Amino acid sequence: MAALTDSVTTLAELKTRVLAFVRERDWEQFHAPKNLSMALAAEAGELMEHFLWATPEQSRAIAADATKRGKIAEELADVVIYALEFANITGLDVSAAIEAKMTANAKKYPVEKSRGRSDKYTEL
Amino acid sequence: MAALTDSVTTLAELKTRVLAFVRERDWEQFHAPKNLSMALAAEAGELMEHFLWATPEQSRAIAADATKRGKIAEELADVVIYALEFANITGLDVSAAIEAKMTANAKKYPVEKSRGRSDKYTEL
Amino acid sequence: MAALTDSVTTLAELKTRVLAFVRERDWEQFHAPKNLSMALAAEAGELMEHFLWATPEQSRAIAADATKRGKIAEELADVVIYALEFANITGLDVSAAIEAKMTANAKKYPVEKSRGRSDKYTEL
Amino acid sequence: MAALTDSVTTLAELKTRVLAFVRERDWEQFHAPKNLSMALAAEAGELMEHFLWATPEQSRAIAADATKRGKIAEELADVVIYALEFANITGLDVSAAIEAKMTANAKKYPVEKSRGRSDKYTEL
Repeated sequence: MAALTDSVTTLAELKTRVLAFVRERDWEQFHAPKNLSMALAAEAGELMEHFLWATPEQSRAIAADATKRGKIAEELADVVIYALEFANITGLDVSAAIEAKMTANAKKYPVEKSRGRSDKYTEL
Repeated sequence: MAALTDSVTTLAELKTRVLAFVRERDWEQFHAPKNLSMALAAEAGELMEHFLWATPEQSRAIAADATKRGKIAEELADVVIYALEFANITGLDVSAAIEAKMTANAKKYPVEKSRGRSDKYTEL
Repeated sequence: MAALTDSVTTLAELKTRVLAFVRERDWEQFHAPKNLSMALAAEAGELMEHFLWATPEQSRAIAADATKRGKIAEELADVVIYALEFANITGLDVSAAIEAKMTANAKKYPVEKSRGRSDKYTEL
Repeated sequence: MAALTDSVTTLAELKTRVLAFVRERDWEQFHAPKNLSMALAAEAGELMEHFLWATPEQSRAIAADATKRGKIAEELADVVIYALEFANITGLDVSAAIEAKMTANAKKYPVEKSRGRSDKYTEL
């Protein structure tokens, strides 16, 4: 089996793989939106744990550290797996949702007003 | 511009769009792995908020509710946007990470032992 | 040393103990509000992990299970420790903040309108 | 009613107030450990949101900012309220749990080895 890479893999392919894994184990019964949102948040917490006491600058070095990078990739994978499975069971299209959200964000954060600033749109 | 959908959109296309949005606003300076992991976890928390007091079964109805579905899609989009941007700034390949994680999960959760069970692999 | 219990222990006593532990290790330098809020959220994620796939009813049994109760108590302790240390370094009074928040909540959720309902106040 | 402050308020007093608020509204039915752990994590996410793009140093200034301090105190109060209610419904003693956890932490993080270091105990 050829390895998957972001340049050639569609969201639908990943979603299909995740769903097949789940169905093979008869786990759909556990995958209510409530439960998947919890699992997603818990995995996001595990991703954060790599960076708790580091400064933002130090966190760049941590993510580049060969001894930690593999574990960080695993946590990121867990987050996206649960996000895709959430989309599977709710019938949401992730790409369409992202496109719509980015269009909305572009209005909230016009380039001229938000360039180089981290303020929330309500404070721009 | 044609609308994006999961069936034809690659991870790389979404990553590129997110990065372009960020660069146009000169926001890469704020996107240390530490900060993005926090933003991702905070958005995961917002997704959860839709389901706090519902039973798992009720949460399926909430996610199908026309008046709530749009907001839920937005929170999911936010989660995936931050996950993709985390991949952008750390140079991780999401698809490869997911494939590797699912291969590892398949060993931890063999079909015969885990079918219909929600136990952690350490308790199977 | 007599064991601490909730009936006789003030918030200030717990805060003082946490701060002493931190200062003895010269850890105040790491305890910026940002970092403590991350640690708190990560520990909250660990507490959730005990209940991911359970129904709410099953979660009551899990919390009562003698083999799991000790670990759950540890996660809860971690959460409160970080909350108290957050209060230490920001100079916030937890009891006063809770009293103020409950007074505000009592207005948002009048007894007659909210009895037996889990709806958000904006939907009552 | 005299205002509560940390120096004179016991954990039990706060727990009793939270429980009275909940019972008056007949909300115990919603307060399964699963649901409370989600609510706690969601509130921890809201606390984090104040500090997402700030450096740790900047986060100290944010927490001291008169215009933001009140909102931050509210989020902290929400976190502790849910933690106390979790203790209420599971019958856990927060002070005892903290004392036990700090004793365990003192062994994992001996003063000589951990002074001035943010490393996890497994890496000391």
